[in-house]
Amino acid sequence: MKPKAVVLTSGGLDSTTCIAVAIQQGFEVIGLTFDYGQRHRVELEAAERVRRHYDIQNHHLVQLSILQQLGGSALTDDIEIPKADSTLEITEDIPVTYVPARNLLFLSYATAVAEAVGATDLFIGVNALDYSGYPDCRPEFIHAFTQTANLATKAGVDGAPLTIHCPLLELTKAEIIRLGQSLGAPYHLTHSCYDPDENGRSCGHCDSCLLRLKGFNEAGTTDPIPYLGQGVA
Amino acid sequence: MKPKAVVLTSGGLDSTTCIAVAIQQGFEVIGLTFDYGQRHRVELEAAERVRRHYDIQNHHLVQLSILQQLGGSALTDDIEIPKADSTLEITEDIPVTYVPARNLLFLSYATAVAEAVGATDLFIGVNALDYSGYPDCRPEFIHAFTQTANLATKAGVDGAPLTIHCPLLELTKAEIIRLGQSLGAPYHLTHSCYDPDENGRSCGHCDSCLLRLKGFNEAGTTDPIPYLGQGVA
Repeated sequence: MKPKAVVLTSGGLDSTTCIAVAIQQGFEVIGLTFDYGQRHRVELEAAERVRRHYDIQNHHLVQLSILQQLGGSALTDDIEIPKADSTLEITEDIPVTYVPARNLLFLSYATAVAEAVGATDLFIGVNALDYSGYPDCRPEFIHAFTQTANLATKAGVDGAPLTIHCPLLELTKAEIIRLGQSLGAPYHLTHSCYDPDENGRSCGHCDSCLLRLKGFNEAGTTDPIPYLGQGVA
Repeated sequence: MKPKAVVLTSGGLDSTTCIAVAIQQGFEVIGLTFDYGQRHRVELEAAERVRRHYDIQNHHLVQLSILQQLGGSALTDDIEIPKADSTLEITEDIPVTYVPARNLLFLSYATAVAEAVGATDLFIGVNALDYSGYPDCRPEFIHAFTQTANLATKAGVDGAPLTIHCPLLELTKAEIIRLGQSLGAPYHLTHSCYDPDENGRSCGHCDSCLLRLKGFNEAGTTDPIPYLGQGVA
């Protein structure tokens, strides 16, 4: 029997790559997706498409409505989503798209799921290079969380300790895309745009679209998803 | 304006004492209660009574249905709740009433709420003496979580760091009761029993009842809540 791994999956390019990596490493994937009132709800549809593609039988969808109630982020509120449109500036500032303690909550849920299903491996697609503005994407956060989770659970007391895999942590977006493509990740099913139109087509101008398009460009390949203003997709 | 503190409140004796301590220390209390399908749902009614007693205006009730879906604990499942009935044995084993990663999830939510409302103080009624079997009640867990939360949030990056107050950590149940009574904590409104009858009356025989009754006894005072078999309450 394959060992189980809980994989945080959002329907985006990074988490889909994580699924591909986990499968390649021989794990049975337990999927975990969060609905926190994100404006880009087509993400959830993408997560479901990816789940079906990989035939993941054990998948949890968790409502995190409190993140919406609490507000304070452009991803769940009416704060305008920044459109860079020129160069992608990675600054020391925390982006307005930051959601309070999001990865802390996501990983805590994943730890609970792992303990319940008997998994000792978690996969999360955090990336230290492209998202340096998010405090909860830093390697030191992941490291501290692992220690905390092992203190919080039976695993840390009398079982095998929990391991948090961050296979994308040190990769550029182009490297992530090359990795995923080498593993056959279904990028045509994924979604990244923060501000899609009513048909789920990506805007091509938000930070997330620009980062994605830049990645495909640098990887020397073409993004298979449709963008607004591309004419017929 | 008073500084805000997020207080985890369950309607039980310990968390009600925490509210009393937070108020005495000059904080405005932001309440946070979890509904995780606990068998003892009268807890939630008790939390609401305590909230009204203290006139807490900003109170969040969070649905954590995944803990119920995941199961694996006598508090949310059909596993029989242990009745000690004789001496309270505190062992090194993890009790069957342990819920996977519960305090990890609770504190992660509290951190998100704190960041959203601008609080840098959390109160949680964990106790290292009476609940030594729960891995997530250990001081080293609280310490590790604090470091992790500060790495996960804006607070840790550019604000005042988060402080997690555990005023009951080293107290016996009798000492907790004496502390609460000195601060006027409304113990008559609280609930502790894991296995109440349909009218919310406490069984007097589960671990939680025994611990509570022993505490009142050692504190030299009487528990103001009614128990089954006491005749008219």
